[in-house]
This record gives sequence, structure tokens and C-alpha cells, in this order.
Amino acid sequence: METNSAKNRTGSLELDFDPSYLARCAQLAMVLEVSASPKPGNVDRDHDYPDTTFEHFLSSAIGTYPVLEEAARSQSGVGALIHAAAKESLRWQHGGNTHFGAFVLLIPLLMAAGSGRRVSEIVFGTTAEDAAEFYRAFSIANVRVDAVPEIDLEDSGSIDKILEEEIGLFDLMKLSVDHDLIANEWVNGFKRTFRCADLIREKADKMSINDAIVCTFLQMLAETPDTFIQTKFGRGKSIEVSEHASMIIAGNRDLNSIKSRVHEFDRKLIREKVNPGSTADIIIGGLFVALVRGLRV
Amino acid sequence: METNSAKNRTGSLELDFDPSYLARCAQLAMVLEVSASPKPGNVDRDHDYPDTTFEHFLSSAIGTYPVLEEAARSQSGVGALIHAAAKESLRWQHGGNTHFGAFVLLIPLLMAAGSGRRVSEIVFGTTAEDAAEFYRAFSIANVRVDAVPEIDLEDSGSIDKILEEEIGLFDLMKLSVDHDLIANEWVNGFKRTFRCADLIREKADKMSINDAIVCTFLQMLAETPDTFIQTKFGRGKSIEVSEHASMIIAGNRDLNSIKSRVHEFDRKLIREKVNPGSTADIIIGGLFVALVRGLRV
Repeated sequence: METNSAKNRTGSLELDFDPSYLARCAQLAMVLEVSASPKPGNVDRDHDYPDTTFEHFLSSAIGTYPVLEEAARSQSGVGALIHAAAKESLRWQHGGNTHFGAFVLLIPLLMAAGSGRRVSEIVFGTTAEDAAEFYRAFSIANVRVDAVPEIDLEDSGSIDKILEEEIGLFDLMKLSVDHDLIANEWVNGFKRTFRCADLIREKADKMSINDAIVCTFLQMLAETPDTFIQTKFGRGKSIEVSEHASMIIAGNRDLNSIKSRVHEFDRKLIREKVNPGSTADIIIGGLFVALVRGLRV
Repeated sequence: METNSAKNRTGSLELDFDPSYLARCAQLAMVLEVSASPKPGNVDRDHDYPDTTFEHFLSSAIGTYPVLEEAARSQSGVGALIHAAAKESLRWQHGGNTHFGAFVLLIPLLMAAGSGRRVSEIVFGTTAEDAAEFYRAFSIANVRVDAVPEIDLEDSGSIDKILEEEIGLFDLMKLSVDHDLIANEWVNGFKRTFRCADLIREKADKMSINDAIVCTFLQMLAETPDTFIQTKFGRGKSIEVSEHASMIIAGNRDLNSIKSRVHEFDRKLIREKVNPGSTADIIIGGLFVALVRGLRV
């Protein structure tokens, strides 16, 4: 029953942790992220999408526990674990894809934290079988992605091609590095995820966890255009949204002093059906790292 | 990774289930309960207490997973498991007691569902060691309870007395049957918990899970005065609150048609610092049973 949660509170992520402790940090990261409000454009405690609600996200976060724990015990099998997480998520709720991007970040982070290896080592070691499983996960999660010209996601022959040509999952991510924030994390050592963890930790010393998450979300969105928006609406729109976030968060004030502008930003994005989903995924990754390192509410 | 969540969807609770599946149902029950809003007088997604917030409840629900899973594998040790859950809850958040009453219901329910035995059999079989552990849990959770004249909770000699005189935990609960809803559940076969599960299930067919929980909460509160309120403010106040709930829920309408009156009720209870905490615990027990039986959002 004991966890080693107290151990290595301030250490780096790449240390040996109890798999159950890590899985709970991942669950809590997903639950705190979706609860944080007002989080412009995304589902939060006070805002559902028509088909995907706050409770769908909560159920997915909790239902995927065994896969998260399995990841924290695993040395390989990133693709199969992402696939398993996507499947288990859909068993626990009827709202469709809730956490696909989050799983793509969390699974290698859990593997790294559980084994004491660097996350960049984990993702670099992925194989063509991981890539094939990743594509199988896509097809059940019904995720919106930009087509990679080399590999057509709609074409079932793609998996055969991947396996025949031995294209690893890391290589596939490299193809998407410029138009997918999550792929970019894989290729660049999860640098935004770790930066996000630092921001949350720093802000949580000065404000409530809710406000720390919302302010970090706005700051991350201001710094990097969201590729989920880019995929749906084009590069111009994603830049416009980031500029808007930047205007609001400039000066690094607390949430109360900017709340009416955040609400107005939220209403605008919801009206336009613009949701910064990739930024939310990075927040989940960052929260996971911060929780593993000992952040508590 | 596979769970047998699909198995026995409509069967009775007393069937053999996967411990991880059961632990996740318990986590989700706690998370959905605290999220449901507006839930008059209690913490919910839109209302914190000064020292205990929505996020404290979320963290406690998620952090206690290993104890919940352990309970689903256990044939004995109710008291030690309640103690372990209370301890683990406090490791994950700084808001104090969030789920003590819920654990007192969930632990035997998890043991019953995991072993295929009846929950009344589980609680009837508890020993003096369970009672001693229960009292140890009390002292760390800092729970407000009505003193039982026979056993002084403030007196550290009470544990010695329990062990010497071999007073079982079930016997202790019998002493509290009239002034504690949770003890009453133990003694009377968890009848309100099972009724609550049926109500939630029935309502969830007709409305959102949030509204089903809120309406069930009001109905349960209307039917039975809350003993947490009784302990703090006396029997008269608890009856008055139930009569108010009864007036609002009369006619069994949907939540939208009564929402302004529910909000007004909520504001009144919060102003008076009256929180129907025992009813919230019963809701968690009922949600757990409904989720185990296959309820999904």
C-alpha cells in the first residue's frame, strides 16, 4: 500500500518510481487539466462540446489506469501501449477521442519515469511495430491529423508499407515535426513538456492549482501556435489565436486581473469551434512531470 | 490490460470482478460525485470550502487507487483498509478529510464485489482489530462525529478497551445506527446505497449524468435527514434541510425546471455552513454500485 511518492520529490524525472504512483500522477494530470477553467476553447468543468463532455474526459482518465501502470513497468512497446490506452479510454465513455495526444506524450514519459531512462531514449528506440500499432490506434480513436504525404493514414496498406520498409515510429514523428506539437515533443526531447512542468510548479506557489494551469495554458499557447487548430483551420488561424493569448497573458499577471478577457477569448473560440487541443496535451504532460516531482494541491 | 468490465453488466453486485476494474469504478464514483453541480451545500466543481477544494477531492479519489484495489482482493481487514485509505488520501492533498465516510462504505463494497460475497456478510464479520484500526483512522482523518457514550473517541484508552472487551466494528456501528447514516448502512445491508444506485441508473437514462446525480442527491436528502448536519447543528436543522430538499424535488421534474431553486437552496446552505456530507457519501456508494453494474457516461 505504501508508495514511494515522497522519494525523489525534487529529483529529475528519470528516476525509478513505483508504477502505481506514476499511473496515478498520469490520471491526476488528465483530471486536473480538464477541470481547469476557464480554459479558452477546450472542454473544462464549465464547458462541454456537443458530443464530448467533461465527464467523458474524467472517465477516460480514470478508466485507463491499468495501461498507464503497465507503461510504467515497460521497457518497450510504446505503440501497443498507446493503442491499448486508446481502446481502454473508449470502453469507459461514449464521447469518442478524449486523450489520444495525451497518451502519445504520457506513455513514453511513464516508461522513462518507471525505468530510470531518458524519455528521448525511449522514443528514439521505437520500431516499425510501434508505428504499425500507432496507426491501428489512430483508426479506432478517429483522430484528426494532417496527412503525412509519405504515409496515407486513410490507406490500410500503409501499415504493410511501414512494416515492409521498417519505418520506426520515431521516424514517422520526424515527418510531422513541423505541423504537430506532439510529434515535435518526441523529436525534441519533450522540451515544451518540461518547460510546462516548470511553469506550473512556479505558478502553483503563487496561485491556486486551477489558476496556475489556466495561466500556463495561456502562456504556452502564446509561445507556440497550436497545431490542432492549424490542422483544422490553417496556419494563419493558429497564429492569430496565439497572438490573442499573448495579448491577454502579457505582463504575467494573476488570473483574476485578466479573467474577463479570458472569458471573452473562451467565448470567441467556442463560437468559432476553435479548440487548442495540442496545447492541452502539453499541459497534461507538464502536469504529469510536475506531479511526479511532488507537486500537490 | 483487458478488464472484465463487460462481464455481468446487469448482474447483482455480489459477483467476481477484476480488482482493477472495481478500484477504477470507486475512483470514478468519487470523481463524478464531487463534480456534480449544483449540489447544495457541498463542494462541487463550482464551489470550494475555504480549506477544502474541488481539487483536493479529485486528488484524494485518484491517490487512493492502490488501497481500493487491495480492498477488492481482500477477504478481511476492513478497518486496516479504511485506515490505509484515509492515510493515502492525506498523502495526495492538503485539504484534510475529504472521503472518510465514503471509504467506510466503499471498502466493504469493494471487498464484496471482489470476492462474490454479500456486503452484509463482510461487515458482520468485522473484528475488534477492525474497530481499533477504524479508531486509528478517525484520529488521522480528523472527522467530526457524534460521541458514542460507550466509547469516547477522544480517549486514547478506548482502543485498549475495544481490544480487551473484543468489541467488533459491526457492534460499534450498531451503537451509531440512529445518528449516523453510514453506520446505518452497515447495519441495514447498505439498503440506501443500493436504492441510490437504482435511482441514478434510472435517471441517467433520461438526463445527463450530472443532472442524474444532482436529482438523486436531492431525492435522497429529501427522504432521510443528513446525519452529518445533525451532528453539527442538531436533529431539527437536519429535518428542516430535508423538508427544503423535498419541496424542491417534489414532482420528480428534470433539473432544468428546478435549477434556480436548487441554486437558491445551495446559497442558503453555504451561507449557513450546512453541508449534507453523509448524503454525499451515500451518493458515492450508489455511483460505485451503478458503475460496477455497467453505467457509463
